[in-house]
Order: sequence, then C-alpha cells, then structure tokens
Amino acid sequence: MRLRDLGEFELIERIARRAARLPSTRDVVLSIGDDAAVLRPRPGEDLVVTTDAAVENVHFRWDRASPRVIGRRALVANLSDLAAMGARPLGCVASLVAPGELELGRVDGLMDGILAEARLHACPLVGGNLSRGGETSLAITAFGACRRGAALTRRGARAGDRILVTGSLGASALALARAERVGAPIRRVPRPRLVAGRALARLPGVGACIDVSDGLEADLAHLLAGRGLRAELDTRHLPLPRGFRAACEELGLDPAALASAGGEDYELLFTLRPGTPSERHLSKRLGVRVTQLGRVVKGARGSLPPRGWRHF
Amino acid sequence: MRLRDLGEFELIERIARRAARLPSTRDVVLSIGDDAAVLRPRPGEDLVVTTDAAVENVHFRWDRASPRVIGRRALVANLSDLAAMGARPLGCVASLVAPGELELGRVDGLMDGILAEARLHACPLVGGNLSRGGETSLAITAFGACRRGAALTRRGARAGDRILVTGSLGASALALARAERVGAPIRRVPRPRLVAGRALARLPGVGACIDVSDGLEADLAHLLAGRGLRAELDTRHLPLPRGFRAACEELGLDPAALASAGGEDYELLFTLRPGTPSERHLSKRLGVRVTQLGRVVKGARGSLPPRGWRHF
Repeated sequence: MRLRDLGEFELIERIARRAARLPSTRDVVLSIGDDAAVLRPRPGEDLVVTTDAAVENVHFRWDRASPRVIGRRALVANLSDLAAMGARPLGCVASLVAPGELELGRVDGLMDGILAEARLHACPLVGGNLSRGGETSLAITAFGACRRGAALTRRGARAGDRILVTGSLGASALALARAERVGAPIRRVPRPRLVAGRALARLPGVGACIDVSDGLEADLAHLLAGRGLRAELDTRHLPLPRGFRAACEELGLDPAALASAGGEDYELLFTLRPGTPSERHLSKRLGVRVTQLGRVVKGARGSLPPRGWRHF
Repeated sequence: MRLRDLGEFELIERIARRAARLPSTRDVVLSIGDDAAVLRPRPGEDLVVTTDAAVENVHFRWDRASPRVIGRRALVANLSDLAAMGARPLGCVASLVAPGELELGRVDGLMDGILAEARLHACPLVGGNLSRGGETSLAITAFGACRRGAALTRRGARAGDRILVTGSLGASALALARAERVGAPIRRVPRPRLVAGRALARLPGVGACIDVSDGLEADLAHLLAGRGLRAELDTRHLPLPRGFRAACEELGLDPAALASAGGEDYELLFTLRPGTPSERHLSKRLGVRVTQLGRVVKGARGSLPPRGWRHF
C-alpha cells in the first residue's frame, strides 16, 4: 500500500490513533485534531523551542537505516537541543512531506520511530502536518520548559573555564563510515542527554553548553569563535566508545580524528568555571560519564598548539 | 547568486540579521543563534502550537507568485491557526529545505515575506533550520498564548447554534482560478484574523471555531461531522468580496460554488449559542464584518435539504 492510497484525513487519523496510545502528560491540554495544540507549562517556567529537519538523501537514506531508526533519530536531534538548554520536553509537532508513491509501511515506520522516542522521553506528539512532495522530508519542532531564566546557552564561556563532555564521541561517525564502506545498516540511535542537561542547569558555575551535533571541533567553535577564545584540548582524553579503536583500525580510520570531527553524537559539550566539582562528582550528578577535555584560553583560533595539545 | 554559493552558517547569519531588524517583543528571551529559542509566556497563559508547510509545485509555484508573497502566505497559514484558537502570537520557527541551485534572491524573498508578516502581527522569527533538498519546502511552526483554559476549539458546536463567518469568502479561490486560467500572478495575501479571534475568545457563548483553510464546506464538516450534527445554510447569505460576481462571470465560474468550496480564505468560521449578540454588534466587537450563514441542526450529513437551503 502506498501513501496515495490513503486520504490526508485517514492518514492523520491513523497517526493520531498511534499517538494517542502514548501515556498522557499533564503538560498537554489539547493534542492532535484541532487547528493547534494547547500546552500548559508550569508557573515560573520559560518555553524552549527548537526545530530540525531530516531530508531524504541528505540526512538519511532508505537503504541505510530502517524507517523506524530514521524517525527516532529525527526526534532525537530535537530532544538533544532541548537537553543542551537544560529543558524538560513538553511535546513536539512533525511536518512530513512525502511522495504519493511512498510505501505506507515507511510512513508507519517513521511515525513509530518518532512515537517510540516520544514515549521514552515523555515528549508527546501533539500535532503535525502532511504534504505531498517529490522527496521525503521530516521537519520536527520540539518544545520544552525550564526554570525561568535558567536555560543553558552557547554564550557564557570564559577564559579559564574547564571544557567537558558527557558520554563518548565517535559512535555515530563510525556507524556512518561502516554504512558507506561496507554497507552495514545504521542501527544506532544516540541518546539525548535530557537528564544530564537538566542536572547541569541546576549546577552553579556553568559557562556555556551545546550538544555535539556538527562534531566536537565545529561545536567548540560555536562556543568560542568570535569571543577571543580558543580551546586547549588534550586529545588523549577524548572519551571513545568501547571497541572503537579496533573498529576504526579495521576500516583504516584514525580514531581521534573520527571522534573529534564526526557529528550526531548528541553528547553535551559544556564549560565550567575553575574550582567546580571533579569529573567523578559531575558524572554522579549528571547520571552519565563526564570527561574533561581541556580548558578555554584567550586568543584567536589558529595559534600554534603546544606539543601534545590540539587547538581548534 | 545561488544558495550553494553561501555556506549554511553564512546563510543563517544573513537571515538572523534580517530577523533582528524586527522590533523585539517582551515574550522573547533568546532568539536565533543558540540550540533553541527561549520564550516567556505570561503567568496564567496556555501555549498554543501549530505547524504548516508550503511545498513547491503543491502549495505554490515560483511562476505564479513572488517569493515574498509565497513567504507571507506560508506564515499567514500558521497565524490563522493561532487566530482560530483565540491566541496571540509569541513567535515562529521556519524550516527551509531548498536545492543548492535555488537563486539566493528567492530565498531572500521567502524570508522577507515571512518577516514582513512577522512584523505585522508581532510574531518574531526566533529560530529555524536550513537543509539541502531536491525541491523547496518551507515548514513553519508558530506559537501563541491564550488565557489559561480559554483556547477556542473545533469541538463544542451544539444543535441550535448560529453559524457565522468573518470577512468574505472566495477571494483566494478566485485568485488561484485566475492564475490557472489566464496566468495572472497571485498577489493576494489573506489577513489572519488574530484580533477577531482574541475578541471571540473573550465572548460568552462561543461553541466551536475553525479557520477556513480547506474551504467552507470542508471546514464546516470538521466542526460537525461525527457529532450527529449538520449545517443548515442559506447560501444567499455567503459574504462575497467586492467585484467577486463580475470576476467569476468573466471566467465562467459559479460565485457561490467558488466561495463555498475554495480554501485559503483564512476567515474564522464559528458557532455561537442562540441569543448571542447580533451580526452588527459582533462585527463591532470582532473588528471585522461578521455574517450569519445559518445554524447547526441535529442529523447526519446527506439528509434532504429544504428548498433554498444547502446542506453539507
């Protein structure tokens, strides 16, 4: 069965029925089926909004990942932005553009993937839009809430700040390299660091925070470039996934390069003022391993790195 | 110059600069440039969320309207949904998918159109996303706020309710027919009925409300179908735009059919309990002409209409 075999309203009905199976949250007053959804943040909360799109043959390929994994990853990209702001999810809307000849099973898979992540992170799908188009694209907008004035931002790094990252880096880039080189399907779905982000927002001494979506180097530049700051990193400290070095060697790839340039790991990269708690203490507070990569120093990008250090 | 001649970050910079020229509102805490935007609804307000997409060759054609008109219409479709909920706009995000060979002038035009409507209705563009793709599509998500529990909805129509509509119907369908038949460019940008929607939300005795995006017949069905209700309308009462009959005759079109089936007029269609104020009084309260089209009666769609009445 193809998408075109169902009318727009039947398809919305179909998706709404699946979405309604999710446990309700007290943030949602009115969900799919009206001109708009109604959400109710708690008193004293700010609203956090982010949007991200997954486009066929640009961000995903049908032959490289299942529709369910593609759908999950699409929502994760948004949830990760909420995590980087220290927000809790309130809900999301999805705008799907797809050709009439798309198999209905793929649409179901995409939606099931979105709904699976929505359930995992209490981020109900409260609305959306369906349109015909020549290629498939999925634009998701997610909303979250955080304590008034307490959102983490990309601004706020200072010279002397420690640079830290949650979890490990490189797994997404490795999965992509494997898909490209040996045709291995991408099964990995990164975990948005929502719990860690919220814990971080409560921590004194946070400078700046971003999620690693473009890759460590690029995302560090988002925090430091244009502020007269640069990073002094010890790449020996890069937290790599288990078995990562061996897998890289098999493919003839440089582990450190892959881990520092590859994107879509969705770990949180943040700076803390000097004198803030130890990595061990932070790991406990954030519920995930935290690794210090280096520190923020004054100076423009491109200055000569001392031996053993890498500058971005 | 083509889209591909600019990097993603340069393009975001370019759009952010234009967006920053808009007057700021006190609802926006953090705008374009971070992982997410931060908005601050007022205490006691609910959050209203809607999303709508405009896809090349489905919702618009480059040869039928200017990029600016296409951009304006894309935001209006979203603002109209906020109006139908009785919400005031807080802000919006735009996700643009476009081919690398798209002329930069078209991207600028789209964005200028969005920003022009954003300025008109105090709905700042606070974020977005840019992606490559084979065709152009623009998914906008708009957020609004309304008094807690006071959002208008599609539910709530009852037998005996009056059926009313703001403004006039048919102008968008006529513009489209002209574009198709005589190649006249579409210049018309419907006005989202935000002021009227907010006034309606404060009015006692409102049943249901929807904006006329699919056409009067289809949108009435959204309010009544499946509830054991139908509409009894006197089509002689259809409010037509000035010069509409003559323009329809020129093209050999039936004015009443065009006005009741054509979409994208973005007027508010709503029901009021019996005994609510007169059309004249309502027009004053809502700041726009209000016309009573008929009333809600019990019964399924398809029953035989009495002479002079049309049933949907």
